[in-house]
Amino acid sequence: AADAVLPAEAVVDLDAVAANTSVLRERAGGADVMAVVKADGYGHGLVPSALAALSGGATWLGVAHLAEGLALRAAGVTAPVLAWLVVPGQDLTAAVAADVDVSASAPWAVEALAAAARRTGCAARVHLKVDTGLSRGGATADDWPDLVRAAATAQADGSLEVVGLWSHLASADDPAQDGLTRRQVERLAEAAEVAARSGVRPPLRHLANSAGVLAHPATHLDLVRPGVAVYGVSPAPGRASAAGLGLVPAMTLRARLALVKHVGAGEGVSYGHTHTTAAPTRLALVPLGYGDGLPRHASGGGPVQVRGRRYAVAGRVCMDQVVLDLGDDDAARAVRAGDEVEVFGTGAGGGPTAQDWADAAGTIAYEVVTRIGARVPRRYVGALADQGVPAAAR
Amino acid sequence: AADAVLPAEAVVDLDAVAANTSVLRERAGGADVMAVVKADGYGHGLVPSALAALSGGATWLGVAHLAEGLALRAAGVTAPVLAWLVVPGQDLTAAVAADVDVSASAPWAVEALAAAARRTGCAARVHLKVDTGLSRGGATADDWPDLVRAAATAQADGSLEVVGLWSHLASADDPAQDGLTRRQVERLAEAAEVAARSGVRPPLRHLANSAGVLAHPATHLDLVRPGVAVYGVSPAPGRASAAGLGLVPAMTLRARLALVKHVGAGEGVSYGHTHTTAAPTRLALVPLGYGDGLPRHASGGGPVQVRGRRYAVAGRVCMDQVVLDLGDDDAARAVRAGDEVEVFGTGAGGGPTAQDWADAAGTIAYEVVTRIGARVPRRYVGALADQGVPAAAR
Ligand SMILES: Cc1ncc(COP(=O)(O)O)c(CN[C@H](C)C(=O)O)c1O
Ligand SMILES: Cc1ncc(COP(=O)(O)O)c(CN[C@H](C)C(=O)O)c1O
Repeated sequence: AADAVLPAEAVVDLDAVAANTSVLRERAGGADVMAVVKADGYGHGLVPSALAALSGGATWLGVAHLAEGLALRAAGVTAPVLAWLVVPGQDLTAAVAADVDVSASAPWAVEALAAAARRTGCAARVHLKVDTGLSRGGATADDWPDLVRAAATAQADGSLEVVGLWSHLASADDPAQDGLTRRQVERLAEAAEVAARSGVRPPLRHLANSAGVLAHPATHLDLVRPGVAVYGVSPAPGRASAAGLGLVPAMTLRARLALVKHVGAGEGVSYGHTHTTAAPTRLALVPLGYGDGLPRHASGGGPVQVRGRRYAVAGRVCMDQVVLDLGDDDAARAVRAGDEVEVFGTGAGGGPTAQDWADAAGTIAYEVVTRIGARVPRRYVGALADQGVPAAAR
Repeated sequence: AADAVLPAEAVVDLDAVAANTSVLRERAGGADVMAVVKADGYGHGLVPSALAALSGGATWLGVAHLAEGLALRAAGVTAPVLAWLVVPGQDLTAAVAADVDVSASAPWAVEALAAAARRTGCAARVHLKVDTGLSRGGATADDWPDLVRAAATAQADGSLEVVGLWSHLASADDPAQDGLTRRQVERLAEAAEVAARSGVRPPLRHLANSAGVLAHPATHLDLVRPGVAVYGVSPAPGRASAAGLGLVPAMTLRARLALVKHVGAGEGVSYGHTHTTAAPTRLALVPLGYGDGLPRHASGGGPVQVRGRRYAVAGRVCMDQVVLDLGDDDAARAVRAGDEVEVFGTGAGGGPTAQDWADAAGTIAYEVVTRIGARVPRRYVGALADQGVPAAAR
């Protein structure tokens, strides 16, 4: 039941996902928006996030793994989908049959797609990826002509349709590396010229992640691929906060206190006793831990809010629980087992955000939200949820 | 299909889980073994791990959340199960109906259980928890008499059966804190005396986690609750390695290289270019990242093995991928896209272990295995798997 009391839940506001997507669409100018929903929609739910982003104006969906693309199709999503991580020997027939576009960074991928296309009798849709400076996926400039030639051959025999040329930005979040971002734009343009000379002139070029959309108009091209900003998290907190960008964090992680107890001074708290109570105090138990995705690196620091007040995790983050040292003032004395704890959310009312957890753990907010695990039940809210978007999704 | 080529998978050896459980049973002397299978069996799969541990001699199962206990029952598991994290207002009727034992650290939990028992018409089974020094769950010594009295009252009217008195160790992994472990044993004994004076004399006392089983015979009592060691991971690598304890790591995380490419010297690798190639080299792309559970804190250090050679992650761990800088010697030149990468496993053949990843990330191996996410397909192997243990499980 929707009103059952649970130890913890992640509430995902699908209207926020849609609104963030609209903001990004606006910022992208004339470019179309591919909402990146890989890794279970950065922890927000693959299909609900996809449907919400599409309702907010995205017209494409991006995933890493083919299995993610197939899951979107299995849920009835018909928008174009690009999957960019395949390995040699992987069966690509399903991609062709389900009309999921696949990225190729090397000739073997082009050939595997063409072979799958011949098996299914439909042309495979491919996006050719060039490495413009991230040194991750994509063909190097040296290898690019071979990749283009393989694609041109398969295109000529009708087994392949080259839909896009693309690449990925390395440091668009970092103002100190804007020169690299500019060079990446130029290198993609050069790769497109090389392709054109071999007769490969696909309709789409794409390059921009969230930071590209928000900070580098020259990266927008035909299509942009924002991920983290769709979920209301700033891709570059050093450049601008989520609020400053007009984005609303979509995920709120909440729990209920499982215990509140009074202890004396000098008590060691949690494994290894890395925290000791300084004075008589109340300890409160939050039923969330690293087994739910809270980073253990936030031990002794991760912030939460109870009854409008911030507290930091005392001692080590455990697998299923963290302890708060509330103190012993009137606010602490009012706290009861069963009280709601906001672990992170929109930041409204001074509450902590995923970015705060990232800062406490020494990582990025991307990792915080994406790794909130499957044990935490997701609850979808917002007008879109009421219209049944999550129902269609599961 | 079992032989389909996947970008990545976590292979879980159920025979190792069973064998590790036998080792722990042996080490626990006359105590019974409760295998702790919370947090999806520390990432190994809740039900498969439970069935394998039971076949290895465990007679109890331990979980944090009631939902985990109910999932065991839904899968047909009939062994006694203890769930130890409930919150006020949570519906406990299902616990009583499904015969899942629940822990109580405060009178409200005893009362909620008794009320659920009256609704269902069966007695609720409770384990009363005392805080002996972890300052996490459990009643303090001051609050313990009230908890015992509440239980005695509910026991008298037949709504409650007190099955156990228990606590949890704080630092059994740390030889420097053995004095604390001894005090915890004493405090549990004192709490049992207090309970006995109120007529609460349950059959079971339990205290030991894996480190207690392996390093502190005085903690064994009637029942031990090992978790991490069941999965073949040492709870105290400073005391003894998994191999030294006769334990076999049950999870092997594998992937196939998605790309191998030649690049020149001076290329920045992955986001923010925190790694730069020192000389002409080959880069290889591993299709696993923090969205799959690899810790981003292992950037620039997480070890993997390809064709019998160790390499470290070059640059930042991304959401779906990490890059290896292979060098340009004969071994590197032999590496191909599609080659298998062992990310961590048993350590046989010099391969990396979850402990190595923990060391690289500055955390514990518990966190590494537990957080391998739902996107990574699990594959169950071993004679137990062949007998259908995972089939019964899903
Ligand atoms: C190919 C590709 N395009 C677009 C995106 C969206 O990026 P962002 O979330 O910054 O808008 C990603 C995400 N990358 C993740 C974050 C990674 O590889 O770590 C990506 O891998
Ligand atoms: C109450 C309880 N009993 C038994 C165990 C098993 O511990 P181990 O895995 O060390 O054998 C745990 C696990 N604790 C986890 C690890 C935690 O709370 O962080 C536990 O919480």
